[in-house]
Amino acid sequence: MKFKNEELKVAADAIRVLVADMVEKANSGHPGGSMGQADVAATLWLEYLRVDPKNPLWPDRDRLVFSGGHCSPLVYSLFHLAGMDGLSMDEVKNFRQFGSRTAGHPERELIRGIEVTTGPLGQGLAMGVGLALAAKMKSARNRTWVLCGDGDMEEGISHEACSFAGTLGLGGLVVVYDANDITIEGHATLAMKDDTQARFTSYGWKVFTCDGHDFDAIRAALDAAVAVSDAPVLVISRTHIGQGAPTKHDTAGVHGAPLGAAELAATKRALGYDPDKFFAVPQQAYDLFARRAAAIAQDASARGACEAPAIDVAKLTALLPAFDPAKVVATRAACGMVMNALAEGCAELVGGSADLEPSNKTGLKKYGWISADDFSGRNIHFGIRELAMTSIVNGMAAYGGLRPFGATFFVFSDYCKPALRLASLMGLPSLFVFSHDSFYVGEDGPTHEPVEQIAALRVVPNLDVYRPADANETGACWVAMLARTAGPSCILTTRQNLPVLADATPEKVMRGG
Amino acid sequence: MKFKNEELKVAADAIRVLVADMVEKANSGHPGGSMGQADVAATLWLEYLRVDPKNPLWPDRDRLVFSGGHCSPLVYSLFHLAGMDGLSMDEVKNFRQFGSRTAGHPERELIRGIEVTTGPLGQGLAMGVGLALAAKMKSARNRTWVLCGDGDMEEGISHEACSFAGTLGLGGLVVVYDANDITIEGHATLAMKDDTQARFTSYGWKVFTCDGHDFDAIRAALDAAVAVSDAPVLVISRTHIGQGAPTKHDTAGVHGAPLGAAELAATKRALGYDPDKFFAVPQQAYDLFARRAAAIAQDASARGACEAPAIDVAKLTALLPAFDPAKVVATRAACGMVMNALAEGCAELVGGSADLEPSNKTGLKKYGWISADDFSGRNIHFGIRELAMTSIVNGMAAYGGLRPFGATFFVFSDYCKPALRLASLMGLPSLFVFSHDSFYVGEDGPTHEPVEQIAALRVVPNLDVYRPADANETGACWVAMLARTAGPSCILTTRQNLPVLADATPEKVMRGG
Repeated sequence: MKFKNEELKVAADAIRVLVADMVEKANSGHPGGSMGQADVAATLWLEYLRVDPKNPLWPDRDRLVFSGGHCSPLVYSLFHLAGMDGLSMDEVKNFRQFGSRTAGHPERELIRGIEVTTGPLGQGLAMGVGLALAAKMKSARNRTWVLCGDGDMEEGISHEACSFAGTLGLGGLVVVYDANDITIEGHATLAMKDDTQARFTSYGWKVFTCDGHDFDAIRAALDAAVAVSDAPVLVISRTHIGQGAPTKHDTAGVHGAPLGAAELAATKRALGYDPDKFFAVPQQAYDLFARRAAAIAQDASARGACEAPAIDVAKLTALLPAFDPAKVVATRAACGMVMNALAEGCAELVGGSADLEPSNKTGLKKYGWISADDFSGRNIHFGIRELAMTSIVNGMAAYGGLRPFGATFFVFSDYCKPALRLASLMGLPSLFVFSHDSFYVGEDGPTHEPVEQIAALRVVPNLDVYRPADANETGACWVAMLARTAGPSCILTTRQNLPVLADATPEKVMRGG
Repeated sequence: MKFKNEELKVAADAIRVLVADMVEKANSGHPGGSMGQADVAATLWLEYLRVDPKNPLWPDRDRLVFSGGHCSPLVYSLFHLAGMDGLSMDEVKNFRQFGSRTAGHPERELIRGIEVTTGPLGQGLAMGVGLALAAKMKSARNRTWVLCGDGDMEEGISHEACSFAGTLGLGGLVVVYDANDITIEGHATLAMKDDTQARFTSYGWKVFTCDGHDFDAIRAALDAAVAVSDAPVLVISRTHIGQGAPTKHDTAGVHGAPLGAAELAATKRALGYDPDKFFAVPQQAYDLFARRAAAIAQDASARGACEAPAIDVAKLTALLPAFDPAKVVATRAACGMVMNALAEGCAELVGGSADLEPSNKTGLKKYGWISADDFSGRNIHFGIRELAMTSIVNGMAAYGGLRPFGATFFVFSDYCKPALRLASLMGLPSLFVFSHDSFYVGEDGPTHEPVEQIAALRVVPNLDVYRPADANETGACWVAMLARTAGPSCILTTRQNLPVLADATPEKVMRGG
């Protein structure tokens, strides 16, 4: 459905003013990026995004990721105006207060509709790739939208994830890059002069550009974006940070600090708002979002659902190979046999390695490898991209209905750590296989010998770290990992052979026995 | 100086055969990439690279980085043929043996001439950027050469470091990308279809391409590369992995396993070597490298040296600000004051933040910011690139004559970890400031609250982690950090105010008092 440009402006200005009021009241937060993206966000939400605020977890919904998590005021403004998960004005007013749902950065577990927790830059973009990949692998028709900024583009994970997405011709993914050219230290070109259009074209993406304050241009770019089905799309939206603030827009000062009373009043006057009123949303703005919600809700009832898998511990346990105590087996080899056995009982198990599958032993041999031409396989070539792999796995886990895994050498879990942490915060059941778990890697030397990694991971709250003592325990650990739904799990496996020792069962492992 | 193509081929084939013999004898290692790069490496070493094997740490030497550390047989072949740091044939034969200098991956501390330890992919490339940046900031005339491969190009750090280098128009840096299109899981295009030439052009690099087995083409590309002074250069060298092995070249199988006796013999026969002889280097090959060394040695004697700074603890201590016990001061604020005071007594202190300078308080206010037009400043805009920042700091530290630092929020030390680890292994005195060191960051929420990071960093061998209790201790810690030369140091600082408590001195800090 389409709205009049005047209507979009009503919605966008309502977002702007709400953002500015939230940050002012909290006396902390980031108004600039949210105000700058208001026009794009309003257009996207009202005319393109397929979500049902009354049914935030509708399985076939479009996924929307706010990769610049500091733009949380934008999230809460949109969610409040749309009535997403019932977000009330009182909650909006509680922005950045302890215990509120309107936290400093958007947290998945606090409001249904926040698909992934963001804040550490770049990871939202990579999780968006994971969400879009999950949709492809599940033959779903929903789209994934990612809003991101200069910081996301500078982070290395943007290269890893977007090169990966381009290689797979990942249709259904639209990233809207808010190019406002301002970062904390000043003009973005102080630190980055990339030609981002050329960069993404080099990855095989389709790229469109627009003036992010011109509704016709925004609409033209988004129309072009949704017409592409065989490649990921980048929309470069040129905006002014803090748009609407008469004197502070286009300055680094508006990035991470309140406008201040005088500038806030001037902003409201400039946008036709009463400067003496706070958190005053015109009824027309609510009405516009309600019209959109009504249209989507009708669609929602007509579409199917994707089920989350149920794990049956007994059934999976019965599938485990029995390892002969007379033999010696490296737990990485046992892990591969276990995964292949369990894959028969858990159709949702999909994943791959960061170019170490022959060493990690994580290939699911009965199944194919996904490619741009065919997403029906269960194995993924993540490439030599450990951090993006971890975030993509997180995005796939956040999508639902899949049990995705990633794998690499344990020493390179260092590269994965920022995303392991985020999975732990979100309580996502992502799975990771880290083989070559000790100095027994031997000849490769200290760069490849994990010494401190196990201590480093075991202190991460809500991250389960399994290190089986033998082949049978490896099987029991895997069942326990699949049974866990409240957070991510890692299994550490040996390169070297080990005696087969343990009388292990999943139940023992799950109770720490 | 120029050699005949036939001479270059003698040198290149000597490398190839030595590589294959080393991996065969060790029964472990990676022959393919080293054999594939032999022609380029021989040309680079004999005609372009300015190093003096008898004087490996000559300050004005060109820096050569082998970013694909698994190509260590290439390093040892070159070093042995050239006589670098006296690397003997017995040592070559001891490849990948415990305690040998010819370790599985090249380690800086084992052989003079290995500029940086490599193995974790991508970091060598970023350290190369740091080496080149250090040269620019010291107005040195040497060049930095980096050999890298597909894995380096896939890693996200390659984006961060190369976007940074492009922004600075970092002349003097030549990266030779060995594009053999083979990775462990198979053809590289399974996981990456980037147009790498377009990608690097988008960063502002100059890009040349060549057939990496055609000496005229290699020479033309390298000639073009060294003619560029105002931008970093990428040379894309198209090669066959395992070139010289008659049936195994161009296969993933030659990446990380010995050729096997039959293929090794066939390789030698194809190259005109006696298949029954091992580690047999033609005298002509030694002679070629000796001719080059003789030419460079003459130059070496004519050029200057860059001095490493000497740290005078008493002199630096005298510069420290005294903080008033009646006041409260955040240690991040104290840290900024201390750094600015110490910068007066330590001209080698240079660095910057990953776009958080106003929060980290790490700006050296009396000094300028470096840019493409002017490298005379002491402050660096690293951009939102924590991992590359850390590696670039390591590269600068490896160059010598500088005391470089990087800074970000402590929670984002997770992104830095792979390079903090490598600095620790190398014993490089890199410096890092991690502000916002606890859950006292408050409103930004759990994504920004470091909880487990201090435990994770304190278990890294040879990484010193300082967490001063107050402002005066902050000063003492900084002097201790500058006095340390055997490894990297981090200082953790608070966002919130703290009472001024401690009667701290650098000596107390250094003895753990």
